[in-house]
Amino acid sequence: MRLRFYNARILSLKDGFDISEGEIVVEDDRIVYLGQEKDREGEAFDRQIDCKKNLLMPGFKNAHTHSGMSVLRSLADDLPLSEWLNTRIFPIEAKMTEEDIYTMSKLSVLEYLTSGITACFDMYLTPGSIAASMDDAGFRCVQVGAVNNFSQSPALVEKMYTELNRPGSLQSYIMGCHAEYTTSLELLKELSGLVHKYKAPFFLHLAETKAEVEGCIERYGKGPLKVADEIGLFDFGGGIYHGIYLDEDDFGIMKKRGLYVVTNPASNLKLSSGICPVDEYMKRDIPVAIGTDGPASNNCLDMFREMFLVAGLTKFRTMDAAAADANEILKMATVNGARCMGLDECDVLDTGKKADMIMLDLNMPNMQPLNNISKNIVYSGSKINVKMTMINGKILYENGEFFIDETPEEIYDKVESIKKRIVNG
Amino acid sequence: MRLRFYNARILSLKDGFDISEGEIVVEDDRIVYLGQEKDREGEAFDRQIDCKKNLLMPGFKNAHTHSGMSVLRSLADDLPLSEWLNTRIFPIEAKMTEEDIYTMSKLSVLEYLTSGITACFDMYLTPGSIAASMDDAGFRCVQVGAVNNFSQSPALVEKMYTELNRPGSLQSYIMGCHAEYTTSLELLKELSGLVHKYKAPFFLHLAETKAEVEGCIERYGKGPLKVADEIGLFDFGGGIYHGIYLDEDDFGIMKKRGLYVVTNPASNLKLSSGICPVDEYMKRDIPVAIGTDGPASNNCLDMFREMFLVAGLTKFRTMDAAAADANEILKMATVNGARCMGLDECDVLDTGKKADMIMLDLNMPNMQPLNNISKNIVYSGSKINVKMTMINGKILYENGEFFIDETPEEIYDKVESIKKRIVNG
Repeated sequence: MRLRFYNARILSLKDGFDISEGEIVVEDDRIVYLGQEKDREGEAFDRQIDCKKNLLMPGFKNAHTHSGMSVLRSLADDLPLSEWLNTRIFPIEAKMTEEDIYTMSKLSVLEYLTSGITACFDMYLTPGSIAASMDDAGFRCVQVGAVNNFSQSPALVEKMYTELNRPGSLQSYIMGCHAEYTTSLELLKELSGLVHKYKAPFFLHLAETKAEVEGCIERYGKGPLKVADEIGLFDFGGGIYHGIYLDEDDFGIMKKRGLYVVTNPASNLKLSSGICPVDEYMKRDIPVAIGTDGPASNNCLDMFREMFLVAGLTKFRTMDAAAADANEILKMATVNGARCMGLDECDVLDTGKKADMIMLDLNMPNMQPLNNISKNIVYSGSKINVKMTMINGKILYENGEFFIDETPEEIYDKVESIKKRIVNG
Repeated sequence: MRLRFYNARILSLKDGFDISEGEIVVEDDRIVYLGQEKDREGEAFDRQIDCKKNLLMPGFKNAHTHSGMSVLRSLADDLPLSEWLNTRIFPIEAKMTEEDIYTMSKLSVLEYLTSGITACFDMYLTPGSIAASMDDAGFRCVQVGAVNNFSQSPALVEKMYTELNRPGSLQSYIMGCHAEYTTSLELLKELSGLVHKYKAPFFLHLAETKAEVEGCIERYGKGPLKVADEIGLFDFGGGIYHGIYLDEDDFGIMKKRGLYVVTNPASNLKLSSGICPVDEYMKRDIPVAIGTDGPASNNCLDMFREMFLVAGLTKFRTMDAAAADANEILKMATVNGARCMGLDECDVLDTGKKADMIMLDLNMPNMQPLNNISKNIVYSGSKINVKMTMINGKILYENGEFFIDETPEEIYDKVESIKKRIVNG
């Protein structure tokens, strides 16, 4: 397949935030040309797309999510956290099959595509069926181990790590566990053994709530980041999801180990967890990526909302309207996300990079006039602006239509019957 | 004109948050039937619309905005507040003509329509050209006086109040001033004279920043709400925009005078103003409405974003995930907004009410499965879900197309040339 996108504005994010005018040529899964428009007479293309001066940019990377939880969306809003988990989420999760999670994950893929998200960093119960679902849809997914005392195991992590990380695949796998507070020290040490065996980075939920950190200090006399670091889990890098409650020593560990923090502002507000100190990470050059968290807590999977929240909450936290420059936030949602997930070929638009690319409609009222396009994406962008989402050189969403292996109606019908069985049943 | 919307889900908001299935018939500007589907054979309709089980509900009311500031969108993001106002906003505003504000206001109308907003409570410089713009577009607008020491006057307020409040018009006018900190006590007293002459409610920006309240205490030995109340500005009701920094006595005044607070969470975050204590208002049964504030500070005009923020920020503020029930927030964005703006005929869907109605697409991934539709609109809704926006019985936006007096392209072109003259010129 050979596709040409001409008459475009291009925000490559390769160096800085400048926007150029020109064209992009995609051949199979890669960008083979990005630059000024050329005379292409005589060249063969499967399709030539007039971008009408709309914007091409790298797809958003959703750096923390639980795609399979979509059946739980809006099922239990406005409840205290413990009631939400114990009386609503856990009992329903207990009834889910591998096949259910296959279908729910695909529902989330549809929503990612509407938000210009071209890859997700997914943690959930059944890595095999999640990989199958994402792969069947043509969606790029990096899974992370979800070991805890109740599900998954270091053996499963090693199995998925060796099976899923094949060159050329849309699926990949990073080692991890659910969280310190749900995983015994013994299990954590076993995982550290794997980390060292494969020299692999490691990720987990960490410092999402104050109670979690306090509980850990009670157990071990220190916070969860120190516990994890001291047993060597971060010896080959990795990162933490949430990262709201860290102390100065923790920031030192993050910096020393080259760890990423993935912030999930909508979920953190909705579950009353707190506000991630993004300014503190930025000040220390600790890279920040952005995630939606799962649809049960958020409830939506929308990178535009998350980007605005990172900006707004940081300005609020610091009481400084100049804090958290929108361009830096756009970088978090794209470049940093890709690198945090090991997707170095999908970080920016450039010749030789993977064609994971979106087109944003600038001819909508929320983008007019075009004073500062890159900043306005963060402050005013919406799913309504996503005209196209391309992953690995394939257009999966364009002008409101989906081009994956199943139709939305087929997926909705299956989700509805799962819901009847495990929620209402 | 006679229109029938059948095969619909209906969230009337008349009593509670139940959703029924049925149909709505609109005749000219009003709803003439809402209920179960009837055999309509032989009845004449200009159009019968199959809603495909999508949701009809009252349009959102944007209860605080400055529509004419759209040319300033993304012009000066990420700056400290004083630099933003003094070096960017004020110098450009000084160059705006009545005609410019006519065009900018219409650009904002386009965006309101994409967000299912059917009326706005607008405060800006040139009430005559704003009314003309909104009226030409067919958009319902309640303007509020913007008197301060530098522009407008009590005489203009009286003129607009008597001229714009005509029965059957889409335009109306409520007395008000910009804010205590920009308006002399003498002018405020003159306005109070008008309030008493016409027994009229009164609105102003109040307690948006801590510095504003502290400045007022320095000037008068008390905060701005007390200053305004003591000279009788609230003797016939009204309300305040923002209302972030109030003390216990202030809440007492709000309650006693039956005042509304209009919260603007996105703008308050982006400008580092603070978080409105919505829970404190709710606890005291002081009605809350929701606004976007202007596109220069926000930058977008999107009620979905604002609703999520009211929920999320209140849950954060109180550290209680059960605080600020989403259904109450949906009511703030519709019913409370309408009543605050004096639009009692546009508050809910019911026989005899004005047909200010929207259709939300439930067949999108962010709405599936349909566990709790009304709450999910607040937590997961997006402009992408707005299929139709109807004002006063006329469809102004449907499936991405606009049906107002000018095309988007005509408006964008005019805005571009205004921008060239007053921003770049």
